[in-house]
Amino acid sequence: MSDQILRIIPLGGLGEIGKNMMIVEWGNHIVVIDVGVMFPQNDMWGIDLVIPDFGYLLDKRDWVEGIIITHGHEDHTGGLPYLLREIQAPIFATRLTLGLIEVKLREYGMLSRAELHRINAGGTLSLGPFQFEFFAINHSIPDGVGLAINTPQGLVVHSGDFKIDYTPVDGQPADLGKLAELGNRGVLVLLADSTNSESPGFTPSERVIDQAFDQAFEEAPGRIIVTTFASLISRIQQVVNAAQRHSRKVAVTGRSMEENIGIARELGYLDIPSDLLVSLSEVEKLHPRQVVIIATGSQGEPSAALARMARGQHHQIEIVPGDTVIISSHPIPGNEELINDTINRLFQRGANVIYDRIAPVHVSGHASQEEQKLLISLVRPRYFVPIHGELRHLKLHARLAQQMGIPPERTLVVENGYVLEFDERGGRIGERIPGGYVFVDGAGVGDVGPAVLRDREILGQDGVVVAVAKVDTWTHRLRERPEIRTRGFVYVRESEDLLAGALEEIEQALQKGGPPDTRKAAESRIREALQRYFYQEIRRRPMIFPIVVEV
Amino acid sequence: MSDQILRIIPLGGLGEIGKNMMIVEWGNHIVVIDVGVMFPQNDMWGIDLVIPDFGYLLDKRDWVEGIIITHGHEDHTGGLPYLLREIQAPIFATRLTLGLIEVKLREYGMLSRAELHRINAGGTLSLGPFQFEFFAINHSIPDGVGLAINTPQGLVVHSGDFKIDYTPVDGQPADLGKLAELGNRGVLVLLADSTNSESPGFTPSERVIDQAFDQAFEEAPGRIIVTTFASLISRIQQVVNAAQRHSRKVAVTGRSMEENIGIARELGYLDIPSDLLVSLSEVEKLHPRQVVIIATGSQGEPSAALARMARGQHHQIEIVPGDTVIISSHPIPGNEELINDTINRLFQRGANVIYDRIAPVHVSGHASQEEQKLLISLVRPRYFVPIHGELRHLKLHARLAQQMGIPPERTLVVENGYVLEFDERGGRIGERIPGGYVFVDGAGVGDVGPAVLRDREILGQDGVVVAVAKVDTWTHRLRERPEIRTRGFVYVRESEDLLAGALEEIEQALQKGGPPDTRKAAESRIREALQRYFYQEIRRRPMIFPIVVEV
Repeated sequence: MSDQILRIIPLGGLGEIGKNMMIVEWGNHIVVIDVGVMFPQNDMWGIDLVIPDFGYLLDKRDWVEGIIITHGHEDHTGGLPYLLREIQAPIFATRLTLGLIEVKLREYGMLSRAELHRINAGGTLSLGPFQFEFFAINHSIPDGVGLAINTPQGLVVHSGDFKIDYTPVDGQPADLGKLAELGNRGVLVLLADSTNSESPGFTPSERVIDQAFDQAFEEAPGRIIVTTFASLISRIQQVVNAAQRHSRKVAVTGRSMEENIGIARELGYLDIPSDLLVSLSEVEKLHPRQVVIIATGSQGEPSAALARMARGQHHQIEIVPGDTVIISSHPIPGNEELINDTINRLFQRGANVIYDRIAPVHVSGHASQEEQKLLISLVRPRYFVPIHGELRHLKLHARLAQQMGIPPERTLVVENGYVLEFDERGGRIGERIPGGYVFVDGAGVGDVGPAVLRDREILGQDGVVVAVAKVDTWTHRLRERPEIRTRGFVYVRESEDLLAGALEEIEQALQKGGPPDTRKAAESRIREALQRYFYQEIRRRPMIFPIVVEV
Repeated sequence: MSDQILRIIPLGGLGEIGKNMMIVEWGNHIVVIDVGVMFPQNDMWGIDLVIPDFGYLLDKRDWVEGIIITHGHEDHTGGLPYLLREIQAPIFATRLTLGLIEVKLREYGMLSRAELHRINAGGTLSLGPFQFEFFAINHSIPDGVGLAINTPQGLVVHSGDFKIDYTPVDGQPADLGKLAELGNRGVLVLLADSTNSESPGFTPSERVIDQAFDQAFEEAPGRIIVTTFASLISRIQQVVNAAQRHSRKVAVTGRSMEENIGIARELGYLDIPSDLLVSLSEVEKLHPRQVVIIATGSQGEPSAALARMARGQHHQIEIVPGDTVIISSHPIPGNEELINDTINRLFQRGANVIYDRIAPVHVSGHASQEEQKLLISLVRPRYFVPIHGELRHLKLHARLAQQMGIPPERTLVVENGYVLEFDERGGRIGERIPGGYVFVDGAGVGDVGPAVLRDREILGQDGVVVAVAKVDTWTHRLRERPEIRTRGFVYVRESEDLLAGALEEIEQALQKGGPPDTRKAAESRIREALQRYFYQEIRRRPMIFPIVVEV
């Protein structure tokens, strides 16, 4: 092999680093870790999803030995249907993660093309020159694993998304013994989750939520409606347990919640006695104090069950005074407005709303600083690479590692696309590979780029004005009065004077200095005249579409 | 007087209640309290500002005795230029508040039309049947006041935006003695700031920031760049004081920061020795450790100084490793993404960034629960009306008041537009008056409504497609191949097949079942055909503009 370098490359969207996808490469062997999606930021107009640019892999598709998925969240699995269109490789994941991947691939009609293999915490896997050992970690979904990768260059430990919960709800604490053993064997590099590196202390155990639920269930005078992430299976278990303790039946609303509960029950990750579950129509026959409804919509998503209830548009559940709504989640940055709006509307309809700012009804799924330190202490790596967080989180996590004695030259902070190289001489940050991220919009992948987004921004800000002018084919003189149509620009009925003035501007533009020579010239004149006119008159810059028709 | 009812009406935008504007009315006498703007939410496409609907006042413009502004923030002053176009009435405010109002009115060319009067904490004012007493409160801008309003129906106390700071930076603590005296006299109704009613405890004094600044200034190896709200004069004083303590000079960048510092110095609210201030060009001659730059951009606003530095687009300041950036503010909900992006980019350029999630470089300007309780305890009102917050904040504040013994029937929670009525029989929530809020977009006030916003949403999500078809005037048969132009829809060069298919759809639509009878019918057919085609092909729903030209 000419190339005795271990390469680790975080790929994917802007924002969180190494979260959606990472590559581990040695010679002509590649293993992909996680293939997720990013949800679009507010300035990505009309974009549905953001996926990593797979360009780097396309030249090397034969090198890909396998794809390992650390856990079943969308930002680690959601890109699989897109990657599998380009690359054939076996997928390895734990049982629940596989179950969730199957649902996703089926949705995209890709399940038959996929080769799925089950792995287990405590198990091992050989792929090319790599031997993987999987270990249990805690996170806000069961069955997450961290990875120890035995490479020709040394041992690499990848934390996955993790927290350390000594008393997890799903019964499987993080495997500290394994982490210590890896540390004792000697670790070349630790890749560790930085999401919560702004948070001091220790992230509380999921157990603390039981108390908050008990208090809320105790005090609720009527129905209880709980929303959380559909993937937060352990939280759903806690709701179910609280319902049992307080003699309430459980109903479920929202497609993703119904699906995930179905899979998790089927695979044994969720224990709900059948007689506890009721349908939404059965709920109406029960006393309000006998009811818990688990609903989608913890991020205020307008089409999810809770937001529809808040707007009075849910087809089966009408919020009434006496209802208690528990929002058992934390806003993902960018969603605050939607969630606040949902809470306000629920209060408006008379519900009591309990949410994480006023009661401990949610805990994070990521390690805080003290857990981050514990991980570093156990693993004692030679190199430290913070991952899974935005750049500021990585910088703070690196600072933490340095405070613990890892020298700055061995704490490597990179952004997506940079190649981490490890060889006999040590580790370093190498070149940046081309690529980045790709927008998914409807069924289109990659056909929307920055130019289209800029146009959408103009259209979304100030609307569009279409001006139609019939001109003589030979003289390019106006043949009749031009016509103007607008959308998203002004309220037309109250803007008659403005639009009449615009027609005059068009006429003048086509007359001044003689008629234009070409159709294109005529259109330019109209565009410039209208842009100037509208900005002067009402300080707006709509998209102008001049349509000159030669007749 | 036929109508012996005291009416208190919170007006203005959705969102915060009674914040932007309130009306106090007795017989045919009205006093307006605050006239502010709301900043648009993310779903208010292209809107610049939201102002209260002044409709209620237009029929009663002769009744308006005066306008009282409690403090100089935009959400309490920003609507004045719009109200003064409709209504002539004297404006009353404290000195700094007046100074800021003058700047705003001058900007709109309205200063000559306004009648401005100065009031003082500790002073009084008679307007019609109302005697006002003003008292000092603390907030994140100096010179804020609360109001005690002696009305024919009893004493009304309005907290303004408040916190209680025993050791404020601007030297004037909240006047607890006055509040106690009002309570002893007997208060009919307390209107109190609810903004922070989700926060337990006591909001820390502004003083705690001095320590955080000292530590940051001590450790900074190079220049320090501090951003905060331009109106947060006391914070700017703290930056200046820290600069003096650490032998650094101060430069300022950003228009609103320069303006506000100018006014505050002129009026004596900001003490900056002249030899401490330097220009940005002089900064270059100083050692980095001798420099503090105060910049706009604490909310990540893309056009403000800090965001331009973060993107490498500031014309005078380039961020380099060794720079320390202090973000001395808290994200206003909806701005989180912009601020996080700014922080990440600053780290990317090598700066160390200190912000409120990792160090106590900001405190809130609003009372937490213990201060809210203190206010209620001092004032001991008969009726309690939570204001200045979204509905959820009001509900929590009302619950707090009830815990303190004010019965539910005397805690009145209302939304904007509801009339609070107080007469001999007591207080109650009356009718809702028509109105709400009005969008300001460019120079247009009220010419953009929900229909225009819906169009902007469609345009901003999926762009626009203009289809031009020349048809015979008499037969309505196509005369030549139609034409398609798009913006914000697809990347045209890579979508030739899609657009060629669209042309065929248009041709078929105009042929199938014979040519259409009218131009309008032709356009409908094209619209429907293209909507169906594009959704089927790429799952997008652009705005379709069919332009049929008869030739």
